[in-house]
Amino acid sequence: MIDPKALFSLSYGLYIISTQHEGNMNGQIINAMMQLTAEPICIAICLHKDNYTTELIGKSGLFSASVLDSEVTMPFIGNFGFRTGRNFDKFANCKEWVTGENGVPKVTGSCIAAVEAKVISVTDVYTHRVFVGEVTLAEQISEGKPLTYADYHIIKKGKSPANAPSSVFNALRKDRD
Amino acid sequence: MIDPKALFSLSYGLYIISTQHEGNMNGQIINAMMQLTAEPICIAICLHKDNYTTELIGKSGLFSASVLDSEVTMPFIGNFGFRTGRNFDKFANCKEWVTGENGVPKVTGSCIAAVEAKVISVTDVYTHRVFVGEVTLAEQISEGKPLTYADYHIIKKGKSPANAPSSVFNALRKDRD
Repeated sequence: MIDPKALFSLSYGLYIISTQHEGNMNGQIINAMMQLTAEPICIAICLHKDNYTTELIGKSGLFSASVLDSEVTMPFIGNFGFRTGRNFDKFANCKEWVTGENGVPKVTGSCIAAVEAKVISVTDVYTHRVFVGEVTLAEQISEGKPLTYADYHIIKKGKSPANAPSSVFNALRKDRD
Repeated sequence: MIDPKALFSLSYGLYIISTQHEGNMNGQIINAMMQLTAEPICIAICLHKDNYTTELIGKSGLFSASVLDSEVTMPFIGNFGFRTGRNFDKFANCKEWVTGENGVPKVTGSCIAAVEAKVISVTDVYTHRVFVGEVTLAEQISEGKPLTYADYHIIKKGKSPANAPSSVFNALRKDRD
């Protein structure tokens, strides 16, 4: 017996993953990110195979990850979270980003920390792709608190990106609109 | 420049990973676990290569993951978290567990949910090993709140397992003893 609601109890933060390849930039919101090792620092991120960000990271082998602040606004999240970047320039609409040392965009607004990473391993898992990135730069941006996925749902009544791993479960939530 | 404290802002829960191979059972505490896919449900867990639990999962290809309750006591965590199971029977000391449908021990005490999984992919990342497990059973155990890694450190002043990915960072913490 599989009760998908059992997976609701896993804890996450919320992050903006950004990348670029040959001038095409994109970014998206994820919750599925974790640190794997400390020496050197490596992290894993999980994105839907069909996402534009996934396609661009696959080509460039580079990404940045920005940790969203608990004070972030829904419009700020919405710019990265609720639409595809295939026909919309998310970075034209977001003013608070810089080009990282690894050459990819890195969101600094409404974020408390950011890392830049180089992909060292790729694993496909059914509908999704796991990228392991070795961190080449890590910085604190502000003293704020990280936004948790639980707070995002409960306090902000946010929507879930359609291709998030937990989208099926979120469809069960009464507060989804 | 890599500021390791930037990684402190990532959010996690705390979980007990359990397994057995040929009658040898063991379990350990981790924070590095996340859901990857929804159909079917797959999760990733990250353990230090040298850990006994890692060795046993490598042999059995099976594990369970229990989500710790925010009300868990430090002695309960300590049984699984602060010693190796190579010469100590953690499951003799913990009474609140069952044998899962997949044949591995599954901790039910002080946990709000649990899953059983079969390993479908293994990726080594420097000092650690990432197991991707396809979930074969998932159940809610209680209505409690999950223990977050942040609460574990800040409220409970807990110790970090020596082989946790973030152990280097925890060594910097003043509350580590």
